[in-house]
Amino acid sequence: MDTLSYCLGMVGIFAFAVTAVLAVAPKGIDLFSAMVLGIITAVGGGTLRDITLDVPVFWSNDLTYIWVAIGASIIAFVAESFFYRKAINSLMLYLDALGVALFAIQSTQKAWDLNFGLPLAPVLLGIITAIGGGLIRDTLAERKNLLMHREIYAVPVLLGCSLYVLLQQQFPEFHFFSAMLCTGLIFMLRAAAIHWDLSVPDWLMTHTRPR
Amino acid sequence: MDTLSYCLGMVGIFAFAVTAVLAVAPKGIDLFSAMVLGIITAVGGGTLRDITLDVPVFWSNDLTYIWVAIGASIIAFVAESFFYRKAINSLMLYLDALGVALFAIQSTQKAWDLNFGLPLAPVLLGIITAIGGGLIRDTLAERKNLLMHREIYAVPVLLGCSLYVLLQQQFPEFHFFSAMLCTGLIFMLRAAAIHWDLSVPDWLMTHTRPR
Amino acid sequence: MDTLSYCLGMVGIFAFAVTAVLAVAPKGIDLFSAMVLGIITAVGGGTLRDITLDVPVFWSNDLTYIWVAIGASIIAFVAESFFYRKAINSLMLYLDALGVALFAIQSTQKAWDLNFGLPLAPVLLGIITAIGGGLIRDTLAERKNLLMHREIYAVPVLLGCSLYVLLQQQFPEFHFFSAMLCTGLIFMLRAAAIHWDLSVPDWLMTHTRPR
Repeated sequence: MDTLSYCLGMVGIFAFAVTAVLAVAPKGIDLFSAMVLGIITAVGGGTLRDITLDVPVFWSNDLTYIWVAIGASIIAFVAESFFYRKAINSLMLYLDALGVALFAIQSTQKAWDLNFGLPLAPVLLGIITAIGGGLIRDTLAERKNLLMHREIYAVPVLLGCSLYVLLQQQFPEFHFFSAMLCTGLIFMLRAAAIHWDLSVPDWLMTHTRPR
Repeated sequence: MDTLSYCLGMVGIFAFAVTAVLAVAPKGIDLFSAMVLGIITAVGGGTLRDITLDVPVFWSNDLTYIWVAIGASIIAFVAESFFYRKAINSLMLYLDALGVALFAIQSTQKAWDLNFGLPLAPVLLGIITAIGGGLIRDTLAERKNLLMHREIYAVPVLLGCSLYVLLQQQFPEFHFFSAMLCTGLIFMLRAAAIHWDLSVPDWLMTHTRPR
Repeated sequence: MDTLSYCLGMVGIFAFAVTAVLAVAPKGIDLFSAMVLGIITAVGGGTLRDITLDVPVFWSNDLTYIWVAIGASIIAFVAESFFYRKAINSLMLYLDALGVALFAIQSTQKAWDLNFGLPLAPVLLGIITAIGGGLIRDTLAERKNLLMHREIYAVPVLLGCSLYVLLQQQFPEFHFFSAMLCTGLIFMLRAAAIHWDLSVPDWLMTHTRPR
């Protein structure tokens, strides 16, 4: 089971790096920048989490994460047009959603196990892990980041991680089941947002319109 | 006295989050982004400080900071038009100044007590705490940050924290009085800058004009 | 020899801060912002490295780095027109290249000695140290950063640090010679890029042109 979760995590890392390169490619970047932005997007969020938790950054103990991110960035750079195909691009978005769901719950779990600022901080760290890498990428690539978008990306993470913390408090003995449930919940919500192209409704936006 | 300082600190956190949401609201953001940017602005500077000092981040031991930031962000989001009123907006600016003054001196004190890079580093960390959260917010929200503004925001912090370090070196026995004095100094200078809308004079700007 | 390396390092810090102020000056900044951006550019990369390695930030043990950065920033601010002279500006670029070469290999060495994620992570940390400060500066100053440029800046670092790791693995007994060789290699490659104004060739760029 741990092996399955680990393999799915690697698939997520792969998807993070690929979607990062595809997102930035239209700006005209070189292979080196593609690799740097791919790595940052793939492992940036988890790195911020580990630095905040003051534990060794996860990839220092297992460089596979970095190698997969490098490989994925190179593949996306070389086979750019392949990944821009509608079906493949969609597949990558869903794998990205799967990775986000997995890593968010893993991060919440990690903070929980470290007894770090319960009950709120594990949820925050789940969100940081899910969106941190993408925020750094968009900042470096001068793209509009997801906080300024109406796309529904992080709210599923907020809901899933909050539910997981609640379940951990109430039913600690079912933590494995809870993790599966909440990972699934995040993935389903995010997949629904991708599939139906959902965006934040007007009444949840600030009233002052952009000037 | 510590309780007073703690309560004033919470008022500062409240003001940081409110002014953050108000600053970003015209760009059109959703409630979730408002909360994230509110939290980052309120506790981001102190988090950078603690990571640099390699001590546990302050909010992991006291989640009140985060709850207040979340509450303030939601209130500012919901009651946006109320906070845009001239008098309330002014009040928030002064409370923000009070928070900046308090946290800057507290940070200098924290670095001093840890014997961290005396005498210069405590001043640097006071400045990082005061401006770090706002810099991250403005970067994420694609706003011109205060380093690129002529507004007088961080120079009072530089002066106050430097004076505090000087007083600590010369009169360590009066550290409580020094802290009060320097917090007051930062607040007064910042309040004067707000009240008279002061900006950096021409001769302290680079000569090359924007092209 | 260590003293020479230390002194050259300080020359590098000086050049980092000067080139930072010159790069940002056309945007119209005040003296305080010049100092902040100068310091961040000069020590930002090394700070990111030390936080990732979870060791005390290097300047907390030796404030000379910060003082030199402050001094250089003030000098560049005051004598702006002097540093914009073609010859002086060129000299600064070469000294910047020297600093980058020195700190990149020192960082790789530091990570290697800490046994941190061998063999890949030391190379990553060399790159982070070399480009981290400049990336933060460009983000804060709203400039196009080097990842989005076709300038050849970081690739020499990648090559030099990778070679250094290879040599460390194969010939650990010659680590002093390897360090000299790889520092020289990075400097030469970067100097060539400056001298001939080299940029990344088309076939190493993403095919989708900027829209």
